[in-house]
Amino acid sequence: METTVLQLAKDLIARPSVTPDDAGCQQMIIERLEPLGFEWQVMAEGGVNNLWIRRGQARPLVVFAGHTDVVPTGPLERWNTDPFQPTETDGYLFGRGASDMKSSIAAFVVGIEEFVRAHPDHPGSIALLITSDEEGPAIHGTVKVCEHLKSTGETPDFCVVGEPTSVNHLGDTIKNGRRGSLSGKLTVKGKQGHIAYPHMAINPIHRATPAINDLIAELWDHGNDYFPATSFQISNIHAGTGAGNVIPGDIVIDFNFRFCTESTPQSLKDRVEAILQRHELTYELDWNLSGLPFLTPRGELSDALSNAIKAATGKTPELSTTGGTSDGRFIAQICPQVIEFGPTNATIHQVNENIEIAQLEPLKDVYRLTLQNLLLKT
Amino acid sequence: METTVLQLAKDLIARPSVTPDDAGCQQMIIERLEPLGFEWQVMAEGGVNNLWIRRGQARPLVVFAGHTDVVPTGPLERWNTDPFQPTETDGYLFGRGASDMKSSIAAFVVGIEEFVRAHPDHPGSIALLITSDEEGPAIHGTVKVCEHLKSTGETPDFCVVGEPTSVNHLGDTIKNGRRGSLSGKLTVKGKQGHIAYPHMAINPIHRATPAINDLIAELWDHGNDYFPATSFQISNIHAGTGAGNVIPGDIVIDFNFRFCTESTPQSLKDRVEAILQRHELTYELDWNLSGLPFLTPRGELSDALSNAIKAATGKTPELSTTGGTSDGRFIAQICPQVIEFGPTNATIHQVNENIEIAQLEPLKDVYRLTLQNLLLKT
Repeated sequence: METTVLQLAKDLIARPSVTPDDAGCQQMIIERLEPLGFEWQVMAEGGVNNLWIRRGQARPLVVFAGHTDVVPTGPLERWNTDPFQPTETDGYLFGRGASDMKSSIAAFVVGIEEFVRAHPDHPGSIALLITSDEEGPAIHGTVKVCEHLKSTGETPDFCVVGEPTSVNHLGDTIKNGRRGSLSGKLTVKGKQGHIAYPHMAINPIHRATPAINDLIAELWDHGNDYFPATSFQISNIHAGTGAGNVIPGDIVIDFNFRFCTESTPQSLKDRVEAILQRHELTYELDWNLSGLPFLTPRGELSDALSNAIKAATGKTPELSTTGGTSDGRFIAQICPQVIEFGPTNATIHQVNENIEIAQLEPLKDVYRLTLQNLLLKT
Repeated sequence: METTVLQLAKDLIARPSVTPDDAGCQQMIIERLEPLGFEWQVMAEGGVNNLWIRRGQARPLVVFAGHTDVVPTGPLERWNTDPFQPTETDGYLFGRGASDMKSSIAAFVVGIEEFVRAHPDHPGSIALLITSDEEGPAIHGTVKVCEHLKSTGETPDFCVVGEPTSVNHLGDTIKNGRRGSLSGKLTVKGKQGHIAYPHMAINPIHRATPAINDLIAELWDHGNDYFPATSFQISNIHAGTGAGNVIPGDIVIDFNFRFCTESTPQSLKDRVEAILQRHELTYELDWNLSGLPFLTPRGELSDALSNAIKAATGKTPELSTTGGTSDGRFIAQICPQVIEFGPTNATIHQVNENIEIAQLEPLKDVYRLTLQNLLLKT
């Protein structure tokens, strides 16, 4: 006998909603929640579907956020099953999106249904913010909905993002923040020449190396209670014509900061430029800020979620801010408390993505109890 | 009325002897010198023609060395004339090989002819060592002739290589040595990973940079009276998958030493490896020794050549050891005194290669007077 969470997760996985295609998933959510008094609007832009669906007008407004899109399957011959044919095997549900994050969406919906049926006159409001552009450029997705909500003043008080944050067991980890991401492409100029006449050339590798050495050795900050120290990593470095007897004309270096709330994009830019200028380099530097950091310190939302997790799973979750960026960074611009929580993430973005079926009911209970803790405070 | 040097230079240029093709040039030399009592042997190997042609059996053995091959023309549309149609314009002779080094060969031959006619019973011996593989891999050329001469004991006492060593004016510079060339391809190993989780990866760029910094800063030697200090240059450095969010698995660095006689290939290798090991790198390093240095200190040959230059051109040549490698490095293995001297080198390997026609007669006189100074000592 299938639970409704499992059935809904399977129905969602069966829809091949590779970014930016929603493939009708959001319509399924509307059909489930509209009868319970939810009002919805779809914001479609650039091939992306975004759903904002809300019950109630009062504060506090509790939002569950997530995405219906999934990453591509990768090589089909390496899947043991059809990635868009949800398949139960030995207690696991296989399919693209099983853990990232169609099970979370199913758990949102069923958890909300149970809560609303039990408490039809609940205080506050409940909403879902769902996009089909989280795994892609993330330009027409959550960021657009947030701009709209900001313009209408409909900003959330609490937001739970259903990203798969658990590591070994459901409930072991929640993300109360994410580091920011700032990238730079540095081109240090030299003067090309023959390697036998280095005095007539300027070797950009030799000019850049002492500066790179200083950038690598720099301690950017010490982190804080929630974040590790800001990290600087070079991903690509290229110079040379291929010939062994030519000093090249320039060197190109791609680097990335994953930065915590102790640094700002501007402070990092200033310090990088100061190092480059101290070494008297001739350079060009293009910056790309791909994500601001966000942080939700321990408080009402983390307590509500942690208590729900403890009740549903027996685990006391660890607060973590590691890992990549997520749409939480956009929501944090309009919502004071944003936390991410979802199932284990061991197989996300991989072939044979799956979720342990036993996680589905407790996951739904976590979301339901979080609503209860936030809206039915005594 | 053409001089014989100019006519012979034009006849040689008219033969399209792109490496390794001699195109009959060496046969022309044989036809000129055989009537004067020269005995010759051709050593052909791997498509390369080598000529050893000698007059006399006594010591000292004075050798003129050079090559009949030329580098490719490059884009024909950028030549003002057919590169294999020698053309006189405004006092310059244009054509591929005009300065590197068919004019030197013509001057060798005519200089020897004049000397032998004037001194048919000269003491000692005169020889030419000519290859068609100087501009190419240099595997089947001069090095093979030297091996042969060493095996027969027919080693030269003095050798003048006709490379175009003059810089601004004929006679301003002779090369009494050349630096060695030692190359390395260094691969520093890391561990690939996601840039958001640097603690789970080992960034080979970050690991290698402090060592590269030390290699660049190292003072390898101070040079000596004849050589500048050994130079270390990186020609190529590459790491990265292209993706901005991936820490790559390794970094590859190509470097080259131009080294003087104060260092040896082994001393340089040992010191590089010591620096890499001090930084506790995991690496692979492939070495390639492409040329040993050679040095002919001031002495009998440099005096004979300098005096000849002074007499023929009015210039006092500067002794230099700069520039790339030449076949002098092979001859120096079997000959105690090797010096290079030839015309100006401003257009070598370029389109519209040329030589000032006014350099041809003095160049021939320098070679003739050098023979005279070495063989007719009073």
